[in-house]
Amino acid sequence: MKASELARALGGTLEGEDVELVACGGLEEARPGDLSFCKDPKHVRLVETTRASAVLLPPEWDKGAPCSVIRVADPNHACMAAARIFAPPDPVRVPGVHPTAVVDPSVKLGANVHVGAFTVIEKGAVVGDNAVIEAQVFIGEGCTVGEGSHIYPQVTLREGTKLGRCVILHCGVRLGGDGYGYNTTFENGLPKIEKIPQLGNVELGDFVEIGSNTTIDRARIGRTYIGPHTKIDNLVQIGHNVKVAGYSGIIAQAGVAGSSQIGSGCLIWAQAGISGHIKIADGVQVGPQAGVPQSLDGSVKYVIGSPAESMKDFGGRVLLPKMLAKTRAEVKAIREQLAAK
Amino acid sequence: MKASELARALGGTLEGEDVELVACGGLEEARPGDLSFCKDPKHVRLVETTRASAVLLPPEWDKGAPCSVIRVADPNHACMAAARIFAPPDPVRVPGVHPTAVVDPSVKLGANVHVGAFTVIEKGAVVGDNAVIEAQVFIGEGCTVGEGSHIYPQVTLREGTKLGRCVILHCGVRLGGDGYGYNTTFENGLPKIEKIPQLGNVELGDFVEIGSNTTIDRARIGRTYIGPHTKIDNLVQIGHNVKVAGYSGIIAQAGVAGSSQIGSGCLIWAQAGISGHIKIADGVQVGPQAGVPQSLDGSVKYVIGSPAESMKDFGGRVLLPKMLAKTRAEVKAIREQLAAK
Amino acid sequence: MKASELARALGGTLEGEDVELVACGGLEEARPGDLSFCKDPKHVRLVETTRASAVLLPPEWDKGAPCSVIRVADPNHACMAAARIFAPPDPVRVPGVHPTAVVDPSVKLGANVHVGAFTVIEKGAVVGDNAVIEAQVFIGEGCTVGEGSHIYPQVTLREGTKLGRCVILHCGVRLGGDGYGYNTTFENGLPKIEKIPQLGNVELGDFVEIGSNTTIDRARIGRTYIGPHTKIDNLVQIGHNVKVAGYSGIIAQAGVAGSSQIGSGCLIWAQAGISGHIKIADGVQVGPQAGVPQSLDGSVKYVIGSPAESMKDFGGRVLLPKMLAKTRAEVKAIREQLAAK
Repeated sequence: MKASELARALGGTLEGEDVELVACGGLEEARPGDLSFCKDPKHVRLVETTRASAVLLPPEWDKGAPCSVIRVADPNHACMAAARIFAPPDPVRVPGVHPTAVVDPSVKLGANVHVGAFTVIEKGAVVGDNAVIEAQVFIGEGCTVGEGSHIYPQVTLREGTKLGRCVILHCGVRLGGDGYGYNTTFENGLPKIEKIPQLGNVELGDFVEIGSNTTIDRARIGRTYIGPHTKIDNLVQIGHNVKVAGYSGIIAQAGVAGSSQIGSGCLIWAQAGISGHIKIADGVQVGPQAGVPQSLDGSVKYVIGSPAESMKDFGGRVLLPKMLAKTRAEVKAIREQLAAK
Repeated sequence: MKASELARALGGTLEGEDVELVACGGLEEARPGDLSFCKDPKHVRLVETTRASAVLLPPEWDKGAPCSVIRVADPNHACMAAARIFAPPDPVRVPGVHPTAVVDPSVKLGANVHVGAFTVIEKGAVVGDNAVIEAQVFIGEGCTVGEGSHIYPQVTLREGTKLGRCVILHCGVRLGGDGYGYNTTFENGLPKIEKIPQLGNVELGDFVEIGSNTTIDRARIGRTYIGPHTKIDNLVQIGHNVKVAGYSGIIAQAGVAGSSQIGSGCLIWAQAGISGHIKIADGVQVGPQAGVPQSLDGSVKYVIGSPAESMKDFGGRVLLPKMLAKTRAEVKAIREQLAAK
Repeated sequence: MKASELARALGGTLEGEDVELVACGGLEEARPGDLSFCKDPKHVRLVETTRASAVLLPPEWDKGAPCSVIRVADPNHACMAAARIFAPPDPVRVPGVHPTAVVDPSVKLGANVHVGAFTVIEKGAVVGDNAVIEAQVFIGEGCTVGEGSHIYPQVTLREGTKLGRCVILHCGVRLGGDGYGYNTTFENGLPKIEKIPQLGNVELGDFVEIGSNTTIDRARIGRTYIGPHTKIDNLVQIGHNVKVAGYSGIIAQAGVAGSSQIGSGCLIWAQAGISGHIKIADGVQVGPQAGVPQSLDGSVKYVIGSPAESMKDFGGRVLLPKMLAKTRAEVKAIREQLAAK
């Protein structure tokens, strides 16, 4: 798209050559053909060295640029708008069942449902109106997919999984796998490991979104439950019987062990681990790589470290080497003072 | 199911309204329609506030309940029995090959084998009697699936993988991917990275169970081996040439780097990491998020922290800030004492 | 294969019984039928106790062996050669499209491309010459697969993903999933969470290899980019808008949060975490389980710990308990000295 055409679409003014633009990109990573953006004069060096073919700049910018400029009131906002223009339209998922899909005759499909190639939907499942179930998905017996939900390719829902409305599941999500549970006994000194039946299911509230390759195990009894509007990132592990209240976030590679409860509005950062059978109070944040061995009652709003502690305690721990060095110097001085007497 | 009917099935007595029950659930998360349970009077508050429609209580319970009660000798045991009654029957996997499956003519299928829709089984594979291979599975050339094994949807076994009897593989398990191995050389100062051929395979002993989206890489030469009765949770990484002896457990998101050996009866807790080329002695437990940089000879039975240490050393480390604060106070007192002289 | 035949193939000499050999294996894990190898006399105990049926030994070895011996100049090298001989040939992927594959008529397939069973390739995708796309793969609209690339079963490429030449993607890799991004606002005290459109894509340079079940999210705008010759292990998470320069390595279960930049020739070890919006300079190594909260300028070449620090600082921290104990003993001695006066 010509820069002049884009400038018009964004309500801005083109200065310089009417270059061809194909995509958006940050100042540092932009390539020729890219449109970049800058709002803050403190990033002038990045503007000077960008390889972008054009840059969105605010009216007050007076530091020039090594490429074409599109003047706009709000460069950040304009760049998002441009990104929408450059982005190819989302793939269209026409309502209907792909002829290769294997859908049990007992399955109830709502209006305008899309079912992609090689998808399997088993006995008794129910799919709400306007749901999109892409290619190569597996939906087990008796599952429920709420209206407007979108299931990307190669997701598996084991039997009995229930999704609310407008749920989004990204590629490779695994819902309803057996929880990890065994009874070990000893007979004549030899261990005997028996699998504990995992008789419950997984339920997701409305507007839940789950990232690629995340796994959520079915309950031993009852339900593993993720509340409405909770957003889970990629490669997260949720153990059996976990309950996450609504409006929480769980970032990539974090794990929540069996039967633990996460409150409402919590944020569990990347690679954090929550032990089993504990409770995290509403609104608590667990920092990246933190390990939480026991319940958090909300008296501390942000914990970090393993075992997790307050930011103040954690900061103190980080400062320990300096504090100890200072103390050792003092002790040395005292010893010398005493020796000199 | 009516509470009265369930009480009869469990050998208990109904007190209160003959409500309709649909599922089991813990006291806190139960919903109307749920049956919950309580054994211990110390949880009386949870009973008082439960939303369950009925609760299983022991004969000696004299604290009442806000809902119907089913009296039974052992509430925990009765709840498991009730969960079995509520649970829909497991999906039936009728012996036979789904007409859409692509099974090479050279494949040897045992008696009563189930092969699901869109599953691919390549040349020379052998599948034992009564094995269940669900939909959308990929089984590469020359693989062996032992009798009675159960492979859930969307598992991949790369060529040459061998499963013992009664192995369970949950959705998204990846066995036999190439191990991570490269030779880097420099030519005229430029790096040249060559892939090291990964010529071995993966072998799993009898009764091994592997959780969703776990990955186990094929050996560079020889075998990556998981011994009998070892149970691995979700999202675990097992590097090439690792050996895990029998009867061990590896919990979610833990990782074992290449060529390491885990003994028998070990337990590697969630998010722990085991370095490459080391040995963990029989019966050792590695705590959650621990990092083990060198071999553990079994003289310490439980390690924790990164780098991993004994519980005593770890506890000491956790107490360091307090101990240092005390020492600093003492030093301050000494200085003041000396200054006053 | 007979040991005598193998000895000939390896240019070595057989000593002892002409046993049948079926595979290679390390001294400790070898089974009857295996060929093992030893170069260094310090491992004589492992040779004495191996269960291998034959062992490759160097000419100067004079300590005997409990099995047949094949004398060769370089046992390690000979064992790799033997492993190649034992390994079944790689599965042949004949050029052509499997009749079950669903390939949109608009897709451009290069010469000698293999497309496996149940694979879906959507509108406008382009696949280069000699590419192998195995069974059950999903390739979304407008994707590009470079020539000579190899995509193993059950990989998903969301729309717009671009792969360079000779890229290898192992089973379960997820490219182009939506990045984790939401705007939270409050209306009348209630949170409202809106999904931020993820309008960019994922691009991989030439010779990139990605391990099983690794996830790389599409950019919010622009591109998430992995440079040429970068090798990523299993179960790694790469957030949206991350840039990894060429010739770097990222080991299993590590994670890189959104918009961060990893330099050239970096090595991110297993389970490490890199925060969002930071830069790791060329050639820096981040140790296993390390957590990097801020940019690393390359003045320290290896960091470890969480928060990450130099090996010296980390070692000092590990030694803290000992140093504090020593300091406390000194303070105690001073107090006693003062009390005695």
